[in-house]
Amino acid sequence: MRTNSLTRVEVINTGTELLFGSVLNRHLSYLGQQLFSFGFRIQRQSTVPDGDAIRDAILEASARCDLILMTGGLGPTNDDITREIVAELTERPLYYDDTIFQKIKERFDKRGIRLTEHIIRQAYVPQGATVLPNDWGTAPGLYLPAQGRFSHLFLFPGPPRELYPMFKNYASPILQNLAGTRDLHARVFLVAGLGESYVEDMVGKELEAIPGLEIGYCARMGEVDLRIVGSRSAVEQGEQVVRVKLGSHIVTTEEKELEEVVVELLAQKKATLAVAESCTGGLLANRITDVPGSSAVFLEGNVTYSNEAKSRILGVPEELFRSVGAVSEEVAKAMAEGARTRAGTTFALSITGIAGPDGGTAEKPVGTAYVGLAAPDQPTEITKIFFPTDRKTFKRLCSQRALDMLRLRLL
Amino acid sequence: MRTNSLTRVEVINTGTELLFGSVLNRHLSYLGQQLFSFGFRIQRQSTVPDGDAIRDAILEASARCDLILMTGGLGPTNDDITREIVAELTERPLYYDDTIFQKIKERFDKRGIRLTEHIIRQAYVPQGATVLPNDWGTAPGLYLPAQGRFSHLFLFPGPPRELYPMFKNYASPILQNLAGTRDLHARVFLVAGLGESYVEDMVGKELEAIPGLEIGYCARMGEVDLRIVGSRSAVEQGEQVVRVKLGSHIVTTEEKELEEVVVELLAQKKATLAVAESCTGGLLANRITDVPGSSAVFLEGNVTYSNEAKSRILGVPEELFRSVGAVSEEVAKAMAEGARTRAGTTFALSITGIAGPDGGTAEKPVGTAYVGLAAPDQPTEITKIFFPTDRKTFKRLCSQRALDMLRLRLL
Repeated sequence: MRTNSLTRVEVINTGTELLFGSVLNRHLSYLGQQLFSFGFRIQRQSTVPDGDAIRDAILEASARCDLILMTGGLGPTNDDITREIVAELTERPLYYDDTIFQKIKERFDKRGIRLTEHIIRQAYVPQGATVLPNDWGTAPGLYLPAQGRFSHLFLFPGPPRELYPMFKNYASPILQNLAGTRDLHARVFLVAGLGESYVEDMVGKELEAIPGLEIGYCARMGEVDLRIVGSRSAVEQGEQVVRVKLGSHIVTTEEKELEEVVVELLAQKKATLAVAESCTGGLLANRITDVPGSSAVFLEGNVTYSNEAKSRILGVPEELFRSVGAVSEEVAKAMAEGARTRAGTTFALSITGIAGPDGGTAEKPVGTAYVGLAAPDQPTEITKIFFPTDRKTFKRLCSQRALDMLRLRLL
Repeated sequence: MRTNSLTRVEVINTGTELLFGSVLNRHLSYLGQQLFSFGFRIQRQSTVPDGDAIRDAILEASARCDLILMTGGLGPTNDDITREIVAELTERPLYYDDTIFQKIKERFDKRGIRLTEHIIRQAYVPQGATVLPNDWGTAPGLYLPAQGRFSHLFLFPGPPRELYPMFKNYASPILQNLAGTRDLHARVFLVAGLGESYVEDMVGKELEAIPGLEIGYCARMGEVDLRIVGSRSAVEQGEQVVRVKLGSHIVTTEEKELEEVVVELLAQKKATLAVAESCTGGLLANRITDVPGSSAVFLEGNVTYSNEAKSRILGVPEELFRSVGAVSEEVAKAMAEGARTRAGTTFALSITGIAGPDGGTAEKPVGTAYVGLAAPDQPTEITKIFFPTDRKTFKRLCSQRALDMLRLRLL
């Protein structure tokens, strides 16, 4: 799919720590999403250790592509040598830029942090490079325009909280310029409540029949990204198919998480929410409060891990623990209703289940959970779910179901 | 660093969704950590789209390395074609394995899920390959021993919850066999409460003076991984330096998170914990309850987002909101003490702050937080912190500080 004269993009992530496994590579995902809006698609990504392998990777990628984005190795420690390697390789000598140093110094002074001797290396810039200011850290990024056998080259710092704003504010205008016009269209549908192969069964054949439409499925925990790419008319045709077939399973087509959609729906309806969690242990509240502005709709979360807390905080009758057990429809109902009454909110969600690895029984094995939704003027809705999986995935899937129950109610 | 005759390892991750950015690559981090214990180090990793690029990547990697681990593309949908490409490339024809099909069918039947027509592709195996059973999903993994110009090749499914147990249970014995003996030693120190360049300032020169010791720093949110690799004696020397210099900043040298260490310390002291969170919105409780067995020490979490909830649930005096405001030393103290008294726990942690993007003032800008620790027989400890950053990082850094305060108290 050729979108403009500059389409071959590669990403090189440097860092021994990435290959050692001590840190997750979050860059590729971020850069992939961002580049798409310029009509660029990443065709390949490599991770190489700090050191000489960086040189090989740049030469190989330069032979294959037009634009290289690199991350990492711009920091103050001795294994951060990307800047120096790139300068040597492209024969652009490094010069000292006092503006950069003063900005770093100011940053340290403001926080009352002592300047370490290594920091000054970050103030050196290869000749002919454009400096991309770092508003959230010390190491500036760099853009080196294509020259000779070298592709356009962006160098970004490794920490995501430094990279993201630098990309948005300083790299994007340059990329927009490189991109020129584009004719690539895309739509991503966030789908909840259906597995990947169900989604394909429901829409696959009809989408594949649309000429020039590319289709991608991506299963995440409790949701599927369905992605269609192609000309404007192909994407419009595809969207119609997806909307008819998947209906309310479509959470959003914007770059949003389920929790963002739920918070927005609550705000639109001027409704408020409380939650009562046992097995999810705060994850549901945490996901909701990750959304900026959630404090307008989310009043409180109760992580009632012990039965005593369930009774004291939520008013769950103690006899229920003896008669039906803490993981039961009845307790989920009492938790949701207790949370709603006590917080005085429009809605309340509750989750009680067995995350494991211990605590399961033959009757209620690990992976069993009940999700409750208390609402005005309607009986409390309880869904039983069974996700026998690892602890963190289980927590995620339970919170996903709870959020989706509320989303469907709010539609 | 040559550890055995088979050391050159590469990882190839396939998946258009990885390059599109719709999903995070968690495989490299996992595989890097796991391979290290066999004396293997990943020398390079590539992500390629589904399709023909997989062929090129295998050929290139085979020319450079002895062992290739591939992930993704074994699923049921039409863009999952790794199995077919590998079979064709290595000239190992695919045959139908009914044992695999029956296992998949059984899995579907047990859950009452309808078998889709695409599923059967997962029951095909290249001649001469070893099947790695998938206990958590349908697509089995495959191991193809080195042959001709092709390196040893492992194919794993993409979903982490399927890959991890498959790796542990079925790939590890094969890898152990390939690894033979090894003489590589490593130590990873999880360091809290110090920035990356501080850590380097404190230990860098002395560690660099140890012959044959490789040193790596990796800054994560609120913590630093300090990694030393080398011969047994070099690592022992290095460890002594680190222990003397960093002391109680060292959280652990095991493969553990800070929250795991805190839960273990609580269990050892037969102590219990409650938390009261405002700006972290459940993240602290969520991190603690991610730890298996945390229910023995963690009794409850209170996500008191609204002031009304802070008063009703934790007993924070209402006049404090007017006199000093919800983000204050006094409210942090009242929250921690209220949570401890009401839950009847040994300890309670509290966090109140301004996560932003809105809600900051000149006096208390976004990024301000107070963390409280209530304990028996000691006055409640309050720490003021200031982390002006994005919302999620702020939440993480606050929870990190709270956990570390408790860890230091428990030592």
